[in-house]
Amino acid sequence: MTTRLGANQYGKAQTHVVRVTKGGPGGNVHEIKDMTVSVMLAGDFEATHLTGDNGMVVPTDTQKNTVFAFAKEDVGEIEEFALRLARHFVGDYAPVHRARVAISEQPWTRIHAEGGPHPHAFERAGSEQRIASVTCTGDAEWVVSGLTDLTLLKTAGSEFWGYPKDRYTTLPETHERVLATAVDARWRYLGADVDWADARAEARRLLIETFATKHSLSLQQTLYAMGEAVLEARTEIGEIRFSMPNKHHFAVDLEPFGLENDNEVFYAADRPYGLIEGTVLRDDAAPADQAW
Amino acid sequence: MTTRLGANQYGKAQTHVVRVTKGGPGGNVHEIKDMTVSVMLAGDFEATHLTGDNGMVVPTDTQKNTVFAFAKEDVGEIEEFALRLARHFVGDYAPVHRARVAISEQPWTRIHAEGGPHPHAFERAGSEQRIASVTCTGDAEWVVSGLTDLTLLKTAGSEFWGYPKDRYTTLPETHERVLATAVDARWRYLGADVDWADARAEARRLLIETFATKHSLSLQQTLYAMGEAVLEARTEIGEIRFSMPNKHHFAVDLEPFGLENDNEVFYAADRPYGLIEGTVLRDDAAPADQAW
Amino acid sequence: MTTRLGANQYGKAQTHVVRVTKGGPGGNVHEIKDMTVSVMLAGDFEATHLTGDNGMVVPTDTQKNTVFAFAKEDVGEIEEFALRLARHFVGDYAPVHRARVAISEQPWTRIHAEGGPHPHAFERAGSEQRIASVTCTGDAEWVVSGLTDLTLLKTAGSEFWGYPKDRYTTLPETHERVLATAVDARWRYLGADVDWADARAEARRLLIETFATKHSLSLQQTLYAMGEAVLEARTEIGEIRFSMPNKHHFAVDLEPFGLENDNEVFYAADRPYGLIEGTVLRDDAAPADQAW
Amino acid sequence: MTTRLGANQYGKAQTHVVRVTKGGPGGNVHEIKDMTVSVMLAGDFEATHLTGDNGMVVPTDTQKNTVFAFAKEDVGEIEEFALRLARHFVGDYAPVHRARVAISEQPWTRIHAEGGPHPHAFERAGSEQRIASVTCTGDAEWVVSGLTDLTLLKTAGSEFWGYPKDRYTTLPETHERVLATAVDARWRYLGADVDWADARAEARRLLIETFATKHSLSLQQTLYAMGEAVLEARTEIGEIRFSMPNKHHFAVDLEPFGLENDNEVFYAADRPYGLIEGTVLRDDAAPADQAW
Repeated sequence: MTTRLGANQYGKAQTHVVRVTKGGPGGNVHEIKDMTVSVMLAGDFEATHLTGDNGMVVPTDTQKNTVFAFAKEDVGEIEEFALRLARHFVGDYAPVHRARVAISEQPWTRIHAEGGPHPHAFERAGSEQRIASVTCTGDAEWVVSGLTDLTLLKTAGSEFWGYPKDRYTTLPETHERVLATAVDARWRYLGADVDWADARAEARRLLIETFATKHSLSLQQTLYAMGEAVLEARTEIGEIRFSMPNKHHFAVDLEPFGLENDNEVFYAADRPYGLIEGTVLRDDAAPADQAW
Repeated sequence: MTTRLGANQYGKAQTHVVRVTKGGPGGNVHEIKDMTVSVMLAGDFEATHLTGDNGMVVPTDTQKNTVFAFAKEDVGEIEEFALRLARHFVGDYAPVHRARVAISEQPWTRIHAEGGPHPHAFERAGSEQRIASVTCTGDAEWVVSGLTDLTLLKTAGSEFWGYPKDRYTTLPETHERVLATAVDARWRYLGADVDWADARAEARRLLIETFATKHSLSLQQTLYAMGEAVLEARTEIGEIRFSMPNKHHFAVDLEPFGLENDNEVFYAADRPYGLIEGTVLRDDAAPADQAW
Repeated sequence: MTTRLGANQYGKAQTHVVRVTKGGPGGNVHEIKDMTVSVMLAGDFEATHLTGDNGMVVPTDTQKNTVFAFAKEDVGEIEEFALRLARHFVGDYAPVHRARVAISEQPWTRIHAEGGPHPHAFERAGSEQRIASVTCTGDAEWVVSGLTDLTLLKTAGSEFWGYPKDRYTTLPETHERVLATAVDARWRYLGADVDWADARAEARRLLIETFATKHSLSLQQTLYAMGEAVLEARTEIGEIRFSMPNKHHFAVDLEPFGLENDNEVFYAADRPYGLIEGTVLRDDAAPADQAW
Repeated sequence: MTTRLGANQYGKAQTHVVRVTKGGPGGNVHEIKDMTVSVMLAGDFEATHLTGDNGMVVPTDTQKNTVFAFAKEDVGEIEEFALRLARHFVGDYAPVHRARVAISEQPWTRIHAEGGPHPHAFERAGSEQRIASVTCTGDAEWVVSGLTDLTLLKTAGSEFWGYPKDRYTTLPETHERVLATAVDARWRYLGADVDWADARAEARRLLIETFATKHSLSLQQTLYAMGEAVLEARTEIGEIRFSMPNKHHFAVDLEPFGLENDNEVFYAADRPYGLIEGTVLRDDAAPADQAW
């Protein structure tokens, strides 16, 4: 029998770097960029697997150092920083055939104190994270942006009925339910000449607005409408992928206590939960599975 | 040898209840209150421990039902809801000598869509939680409010020097460092006739503003100033307790790469971290250890 | 512009079911099976996305009920239970073209008490989980087994040197380091007529033994050797995929305290960490990307 | 109005140190000790709070260094290591009036490979942690040992009935239920001249055996019996405190599917859960609240 090495990659995961940029008079007005950066490299790495010869292996420690060193230069949006890093790894190291740099950004908001914006104090904005993932090979590159843990909930405008009933069905149909989800959305750009901040802000706004305003007969319908809204508005985006849990809120039976529950008191369950995953594509977009 | 039962309590922990309140024309404008409620009861519970006789034991399942049933009535602020529940448990069950109801509230913000506030769609506000903890005995009651996971960071206005040096000291003194913490603050009210929402909002605002504006020679100094600001402004508060990690941000040494790091590039460490705990008291406030 | 629906699937995630099986005299000797089951279905689900017509949608609540109902019958090994469920979903529901059932099993060990095995008391065995993932389409099926969070560490027999040095390299070469990882390994069977328990036990044993005994020049080399050992011993396995963090242990510099550190005192870091992912294949195994 | 500083303490939390001890011929047989150490100091720290004067403040960085330096010497059991550290902090720094050192130990088990114990390869033993917490003042010291996340379950021998019924009661009585908990137990020694390893092993064994063998009418009864068993067997222990969740396992209603469920199929719930906290004391033990 013979075995062989199949697909493989390696890198340094979760380098947590905070970049302070000093502007304004006397450099007293600060901005911060809080990023967790993961690098994964694929290429000519058979030797280290088969014999332990590390002659081709850029140490993950070096990758970490590179993240810090590159952060000394202007970082820009996370898509730009990921592009710079991924191009460096694939361009400057011959054995590297594909580099993927994934960044998770924790947003912060400037504190307002004593009547105005404070020059150097910040509050963490929440648990939602901005995501960028850039994949570079020698000849091509793909930029995926996204967000994760954007938790949305609506208390009306959501129904679920008309599904098949069988031996294992006990769920009653409903014309009014709480719909709650934690959106994980990732969209692929058709190129790299993009106003990243503007595209992200607008995509995010449309996701939230569509969730709120679309009357929902299923979470799938809401998901598709959210994707469609983004693709219609942003021609630089070719595809958007969602992973959205259906975070169940069950109306509590209050009858034993002599009370009515007109969709007012809910038990929010942790597990199990529904999980809806779907892709919305621009019809004419070429497939790009390497981007993910 | 003889053993005996010492301090003990029991209850239902983490009942996650979401209350929807419907107002406006046609009941179409909704509000939500998202609470995780934990009940702990102390009292005449020796029998169940020694013999398994449960004649005095209010089942934790009943406690959970009570939380849901009480949520059917107007909930109000979490301090009010905790008071109603705690008074019920200590008042209506003879074996219960002390009831503590602790609530963690997840705030949500109303979504703005199509140019205005949406009547029934919401976005989770972040990871910061509002806390209320009410303790009732037959004759007394205490209300503690607070917040947890309020993460703050300042990139200037923080120093640390003048500490003793010994055999185990390697830390260099600094006149400029990043100061970051996740505030857990809990304040005790002197009574229960309080405008809870206003007191909370103002306490929170003062904590944040003081963190930002107080020039810091140590996190302890910042902590004390934060507490003092709250006590000076809110006479209904008698005491405030803090637990604040010092979330270290280390300036990365970029010299090996031929770069200077003028406090611009930081590595944000997870562990170990400093932990600062302290209490600030109104000088004339009577001690109230039972409240905690 | 036109958009369309791309790849999509949905299901109920993380139904946590515990099955008690009663044997022995009087049914007094119990066994337990603790499983967290996730179902994902793909098929003719365009209508619900585009119009909210749920006529094809097996509710995730029904899927959950099915998991519980099927658990009433003899569960067997998790591979068998996943096979039964996946075959059911793809066989009994016309719109379902592909069903994937992923099970995570928490092992428990029987408590020994008063000199012998206790008939119905158990202790959770640890954080390592057993994994099975079965994918069924109308014509084909694939079984992947695995384990996750198997944390291994060796304090000798691990080196790392011979890597390229460049502008961003600061890591010193080492001929003696701590090597620690949390193994996530998943292996694909070539068929479904397998002694699952035996294959799993032997694969696990070989992974651990190889980690321990293989002198390591890189974690990649260790990974490959682990995969090779499994494939050589178990002809029913065609492929094995690993995701293994390099959990760094840094020797602490004790010189400032007048002490030597001969690889005795280590700081165990959380982040960043190296991440090594690789596949080891039987040379003649047909590719089967649909299995994953 | 005047405010003042109340109770306060500070220290370095969660220094994760791994100590390798080399014995046997040629130092080739290794042992490991994996500890996460937290230090908290109380004393004359008013100045740093009020004015930022750090002249009395042992930096938390120094505390971390001390942990690493002390780990270079023989560590012994975690109780011994915590004692050495706590005595050092309270003895060598005049401003420190009380030092508490809390250690969480992750156990590892030696890997058996190629027919015997491997000299330097280990597998993490599980999620259960060993705990030690030592508190030293100038004149006194207390040692608390314990364990956390010891998850136990029994499928028979557990009942719950005889509790009061009222308006909010819906729970049916049961004479057969699954009883599951994650034990957090901490016991206080009456002195510091103890065979720590032996006392711990025996306490742990008795906790598990008693959980298994004690017929349970309530989790409180089980808790008390567990404590009593430890106190009766180990005269060096004066008190034991428990925090034990009641991890509910609900028998699933299979009737809608035409199936019977004779306590065979359970849904394991995450939240809410019951929480039982209790102390078992040796009758003649002096109180020692400072130990906790």
